[in-house]
Amino acid sequence: MELAKRVSKLGTETAFAVSAEAAKHVAQGNRVYPFHLGDMNIKTPDNIIEATYRAMKDGKTGYCPNYGIPRLRELLAEDINRSHGTDYTIDNVAIQPGGKPTISKFFMAMMNAGDEVLYPNPGYPIYESQIEFQGGIGLPYTYHEGKENFELDIDQIEKKITPRTKLIVVNDLQNPTGAEASRQELEALADVIRRHNLFVLCDEAYFDIRYEGKSLSLASLPGMAERCLLLYTFSKKFAMTGWRLGASIGPREVVDVIAKLNVNDESCSNHFIQYGAIEGLTGDQSGADQVVKTLAARRDMAVSMLNSIDGIRCFRPNATFYLFPNVTEAMKRKGFGGPPQTQNTAFGDPGDYEQFRKAALQQTGVSFCTRRHFGRPLPGESRLYIRFAYSGIDVDDIEEGLNRFKQWIES
Amino acid sequence: MELAKRVSKLGTETAFAVSAEAAKHVAQGNRVYPFHLGDMNIKTPDNIIEATYRAMKDGKTGYCPNYGIPRLRELLAEDINRSHGTDYTIDNVAIQPGGKPTISKFFMAMMNAGDEVLYPNPGYPIYESQIEFQGGIGLPYTYHEGKENFELDIDQIEKKITPRTKLIVVNDLQNPTGAEASRQELEALADVIRRHNLFVLCDEAYFDIRYEGKSLSLASLPGMAERCLLLYTFSKKFAMTGWRLGASIGPREVVDVIAKLNVNDESCSNHFIQYGAIEGLTGDQSGADQVVKTLAARRDMAVSMLNSIDGIRCFRPNATFYLFPNVTEAMKRKGFGGPPQTQNTAFGDPGDYEQFRKAALQQTGVSFCTRRHFGRPLPGESRLYIRFAYSGIDVDDIEEGLNRFKQWIES
Repeated sequence: MELAKRVSKLGTETAFAVSAEAAKHVAQGNRVYPFHLGDMNIKTPDNIIEATYRAMKDGKTGYCPNYGIPRLRELLAEDINRSHGTDYTIDNVAIQPGGKPTISKFFMAMMNAGDEVLYPNPGYPIYESQIEFQGGIGLPYTYHEGKENFELDIDQIEKKITPRTKLIVVNDLQNPTGAEASRQELEALADVIRRHNLFVLCDEAYFDIRYEGKSLSLASLPGMAERCLLLYTFSKKFAMTGWRLGASIGPREVVDVIAKLNVNDESCSNHFIQYGAIEGLTGDQSGADQVVKTLAARRDMAVSMLNSIDGIRCFRPNATFYLFPNVTEAMKRKGFGGPPQTQNTAFGDPGDYEQFRKAALQQTGVSFCTRRHFGRPLPGESRLYIRFAYSGIDVDDIEEGLNRFKQWIES
Repeated sequence: MELAKRVSKLGTETAFAVSAEAAKHVAQGNRVYPFHLGDMNIKTPDNIIEATYRAMKDGKTGYCPNYGIPRLRELLAEDINRSHGTDYTIDNVAIQPGGKPTISKFFMAMMNAGDEVLYPNPGYPIYESQIEFQGGIGLPYTYHEGKENFELDIDQIEKKITPRTKLIVVNDLQNPTGAEASRQELEALADVIRRHNLFVLCDEAYFDIRYEGKSLSLASLPGMAERCLLLYTFSKKFAMTGWRLGASIGPREVVDVIAKLNVNDESCSNHFIQYGAIEGLTGDQSGADQVVKTLAARRDMAVSMLNSIDGIRCFRPNATFYLFPNVTEAMKRKGFGGPPQTQNTAFGDPGDYEQFRKAALQQTGVSFCTRRHFGRPLPGESRLYIRFAYSGIDVDDIEEGLNRFKQWIES
């Protein structure tokens, strides 16, 4: 038996290995403070569970259309139109078994072998994995640490574009940095996208996980809806990560191909849970409101604790449930993160990051991912970052864990 | 916006168009007898629904491992070992969101561009679609109408093999023919597979939908388990088509790649429904038994009605819920299905089949698929077949519908 050659290009989420290590540490009788995964320890609202149960009992257990059930597609189009100012209809929506399926299907539908694709690094590792696995060429673009936020460098993005560059992945309200672009940044980005005739995978997984203000979508800017495929997910807003339900929303021509891929790959998404999602969108919103309130309290605690630590600097993002503190000084203080070895090697090579992460787990029980779990460090990268997710840990444990972390760093 | 070039090679299940036509016919106030789709009008057993509800309430709503929950993988390995005589362990099982995902992931994991793949025609249309979409070259092999069954022509299969032939799709207990290979046929096939060092996608979607006797898997023959990836599904046995739950079972090296594709494509399968599947495998089996009993009564009625029609000849398969009657004479009698136009054109071109199918729907309300929905007719093909699925129609309606069909054919 011989595996296909392309398998060597398939990436993964290395965060799962961190998860396995944390589980092992627990099994050895230790306390772990889990900041490593974007899973949620918040229950799905009861009204969604009950609506799903009713649908099961009602016999919604056979296949549904590959595009998903019409009522849910219709409601989702309306919901997105309200928040985005777009004019999507049912024909622009294909329900998916999760948010993630939109990523691989986007590249299947839009990318030829040899096409160049701009994608964020640090960023969600599946973009790079799917670009390379499916024969594309990834062009990483990065974020810079600004005064109050991580910022896009639009010039940097434009300089990378060649005639072979066809696509760009945009994940505003970003994992792992929590970055949020200003309207000006988004407009400048949209300008580049229009001038170079790019098509966009617009990953909006965290659009509704928002504590202050209002999220702005790239697709809301003039002429952009026809250039964007939106990745929508029910996972975060309704604490439904393990349900696997989301949608691809965009120009009909693209959505039709995505839905044809659904016929090929999984026939349709689970039928009865789509009735739970209808309840989520139309029913009592107190459950969804509580999700955001719970997360906001956790953010406040985590940000304030991290900023109290000598050598750590952390923004306070208004959206997502991720923090990406600059730990350059803290790592140096603990003896990790020497200078770059060559011009092409990033400061803080993977070994350093991994050693720091493992030492923190062993010494404090605090488990997190590092910048390295979100892409290969780029040439010239000189600051060191780690990522904390606060979706799976209660506020008291955040305080206790980060206190231990502080004592260790400062000792 | 420009779609990827490979999209032009993406196929679909044209049966869905038949479904849409049938729905339109109903909307126009007509009675329809639905034999066109392999969906089920049988409810999922209550104990499975209740176990799923309990898991939801219990908070099994977050992510589970990409391989699926350990207990289900373990139980499935044991279940397959009992029926197949294999020695799979938990490491050989990756849970999937349906039976179908094993098809596309198999080709991603095992097929290089330009590799040749043997696949059945008539057969499930997604094999051909995925082979071509992913850059492989499909080599169709066909079945011959024997005395009591459709039979494999092993010589025909072997003659098609070249040094570039790497894979074969085997779907014994077949959709659409209902064909079941004898032990001798399977042994001859295994011999060819071993001699030419092929790897097998062994689609066993209908392994447990069995009325008499015992199903035999290709993977049970000596040396074959290490050459087969099994497609398993909960859809049919437990009337769970719309739940989307299945598994890829095979050599660990292949299953590990499939599970890495799960990380990339959908993170994991729905978490809480896996507890429903555990109940399906370990709990009260009266629901699953009733599914098979219900289908058996339908088969008996449908086969006997079809064989009572002048110009139709239909086998009585011991497994699957499909019938593939030879309607050559019946179609001729109704003025469809002229002689082949050229040596390379099949007898009964798609137009003839479609005209016959539409006429039957209009005149009798009986809705079915034809041979054409299961692949391009092969050169020299001279007999005409249609496909009846009896999974979505009650026994009284089968009798009534096929009586109308008989009157129309014989008029």
